[in-house]
Amino acid sequence: MKLICTDCGAPYPFETAYPRCRTCNEPLELTLGDLNKAAIQTRHHNMLKRYHDFLPFAHGYEHLSLGEGRTPLLSSDRLAQTVGIQQLLIKNETLNPTWSFKDRGTLTGLIHAVTLGYKKIGTVSTGNMAPSVAAYCAHAGLEAYVLVSADMPNSKIVPIAIYGPKLIRVQGDYGALYFDSLKIGVNNDIYFINSDVPFRVEGSKTIAFEICEQTNFDVPDLVVVPTSAAGNIRGILKGFVEFQQAGLIDSIPRMVVAQAAGCAPIVRAYNNRSRRIAPWSQPSTIAHAIENPYPPSGNQILRQLDGNNGFAVAISDDEILAAQDQLARVGLFGQPAAAVPFAAIKQMRTNGLIGASERVVCIFTGSGLKYPEAVAGRSEKIQETGLEDLANIFKKE
Amino acid sequence: MKLICTDCGAPYPFETAYPRCRTCNEPLELTLGDLNKAAIQTRHHNMLKRYHDFLPFAHGYEHLSLGEGRTPLLSSDRLAQTVGIQQLLIKNETLNPTWSFKDRGTLTGLIHAVTLGYKKIGTVSTGNMAPSVAAYCAHAGLEAYVLVSADMPNSKIVPIAIYGPKLIRVQGDYGALYFDSLKIGVNNDIYFINSDVPFRVEGSKTIAFEICEQTNFDVPDLVVVPTSAAGNIRGILKGFVEFQQAGLIDSIPRMVVAQAAGCAPIVRAYNNRSRRIAPWSQPSTIAHAIENPYPPSGNQILRQLDGNNGFAVAISDDEILAAQDQLARVGLFGQPAAAVPFAAIKQMRTNGLIGASERVVCIFTGSGLKYPEAVAGRSEKIQETGLEDLANIFKKE
Repeated sequence: MKLICTDCGAPYPFETAYPRCRTCNEPLELTLGDLNKAAIQTRHHNMLKRYHDFLPFAHGYEHLSLGEGRTPLLSSDRLAQTVGIQQLLIKNETLNPTWSFKDRGTLTGLIHAVTLGYKKIGTVSTGNMAPSVAAYCAHAGLEAYVLVSADMPNSKIVPIAIYGPKLIRVQGDYGALYFDSLKIGVNNDIYFINSDVPFRVEGSKTIAFEICEQTNFDVPDLVVVPTSAAGNIRGILKGFVEFQQAGLIDSIPRMVVAQAAGCAPIVRAYNNRSRRIAPWSQPSTIAHAIENPYPPSGNQILRQLDGNNGFAVAISDDEILAAQDQLARVGLFGQPAAAVPFAAIKQMRTNGLIGASERVVCIFTGSGLKYPEAVAGRSEKIQETGLEDLANIFKKE
Repeated sequence: MKLICTDCGAPYPFETAYPRCRTCNEPLELTLGDLNKAAIQTRHHNMLKRYHDFLPFAHGYEHLSLGEGRTPLLSSDRLAQTVGIQQLLIKNETLNPTWSFKDRGTLTGLIHAVTLGYKKIGTVSTGNMAPSVAAYCAHAGLEAYVLVSADMPNSKIVPIAIYGPKLIRVQGDYGALYFDSLKIGVNNDIYFINSDVPFRVEGSKTIAFEICEQTNFDVPDLVVVPTSAAGNIRGILKGFVEFQQAGLIDSIPRMVVAQAAGCAPIVRAYNNRSRRIAPWSQPSTIAHAIENPYPPSGNQILRQLDGNNGFAVAISDDEILAAQDQLARVGLFGQPAAAVPFAAIKQMRTNGLIGASERVVCIFTGSGLKYPEAVAGRSEKIQETGLEDLANIFKKE
């Protein structure tokens, strides 16, 4: 087991905390070795035990788990018909311990940090990752350093602060902060579990593993992922690849990078057939959870989309909000970023990028309760009455 | 299978939607008949299939599920030591589709309504039940009527309205509204799935079923439940009783009614050795989710605590907020009501009501994201810096 640079292939030892190649500054990724004999340990439910053969850790770290994973894969015939596809499946990642997909990768990142002896964990976050890292560090009894952008509203600070991390608001460019934080980590013995670090990617793999199990290994045609740093989509793709290597599935779904039109550096490069992400100036979208202007795994996912025959699409805020409403009308209330994949499917179907026979999984990344302000003023139709007149309201119906 | 009055024992047919005895106005409860051959269907994960032998429905309603249940049971050695008990287990019900325990009973209530041919579903709610019923009705394509109190802040309306129910603010006494809504239901063909209706109680049973499985059928000594209408605690107790009838467990935990001191009608009656709840005038607590001044299953849970050797304890808002912080410091951010059981355990240990050898389960009912205002101003210690000075913050450490 070792880390390799996703671009130049340079090897790094398993014990490397720094997540990028010292030569080409591209992200590292773990290689697991031969998976021929790897199997799902079906008698276990905890993801560390169930997928132990596909994860790079010894046993004995289950006490760091908060019960992440095992999220539902919901099929909505109604939404599938609306869009005109064969099957629409929604992987509801809001049912994780801090109500987003981030918890899977936080756990695996934390375990790597603990195996290396770190006592301090850091992260840079616009949204979901901050509470996740703070919660898991609280549970593990480790010190958490959470760097957030200066303009984060106080209502978003509260659900992070409750876990007791060291919170630091940083003025300046959020894209640059990612790279600065890594240097600070090296100089201060802080393991930074940022969005796309190799051992967070290992956790995201379990989304793919569960999708395979939940579809009885009859994998979908497409998996659509709200994409910011591009760590989660890398992990999901890696999960499918490893299950194929283990002989558990025959094919790998086409991956779709779904970004907000107001911050779409990967989509722009994809459309320009460029291999390099350029920073997005003045990002602006209601989907703050995917508002990274300079995705640290952007170049890598561009390289991967080629071989995967994947897509990259950008969704306007209006499309995002409409999708958020439609999902709620089948019982799923997500943060705006979580609605991006369904909006992407609608757009791709309209544009003819995909056909009517497709089976699609949307990754539903985070709870709508994280950002109710995005909905306020849109849906609240409400009647008022006194108790004595209540029966009359119903008589009029 | 039939319904019986929990007080006078009068029988009612399975098809009864009205949840109370027409003679004594006490709640009805379902009797399942002989459970000697009932077993857990371990190959299934969906709770309707897994616990089919213990639920009153035919197969074929799984499409109404949103993936509720299967929530983690987390053990916290640190909190157990803090309190001085042998084991503290936290059943994290915030990982349900609308982020509270209510989803289990909403599903089973909805199924009963659907089997009876209802197209309209109603509920009366101060908090968790409203989004739950609205979400499940949206998913099922049924009309939802959600009655909320006039003083519910708009920030709590948004996460209900997104699902598209008919929302009605009602001025007047919340305790009375429960009974009025039942009449409205009868007159308008609306099935009201209120907090303690028999088929919601059936869903709450699955919490007990899962606890049994998650403790390898070595049941805990105590189960502590935040209690308002008393439907959830009735269901959990019923679940343990039925697993004992099926020979799956040897004993039944002692149940603890945990109420907020500012609205504690059950605790007051328990302490006075009364068998009848009296309405609580001017309820006032930060734990709004359990602020029912006249619990419709209050008399029934008083009857049950006797035979169960259970307890009823009241917790001040200061104790609730302290417990909320302590739980967050092990990674669990709950709404104030969810912190009430841990606060109860602390109080009971201090008072000598329970000893050091106890194994306790706290029911962690709803997500902290439902009411972040309860935390605001308490925990947010935050530093600010520019990107250029960020490294200096760490040097000072």
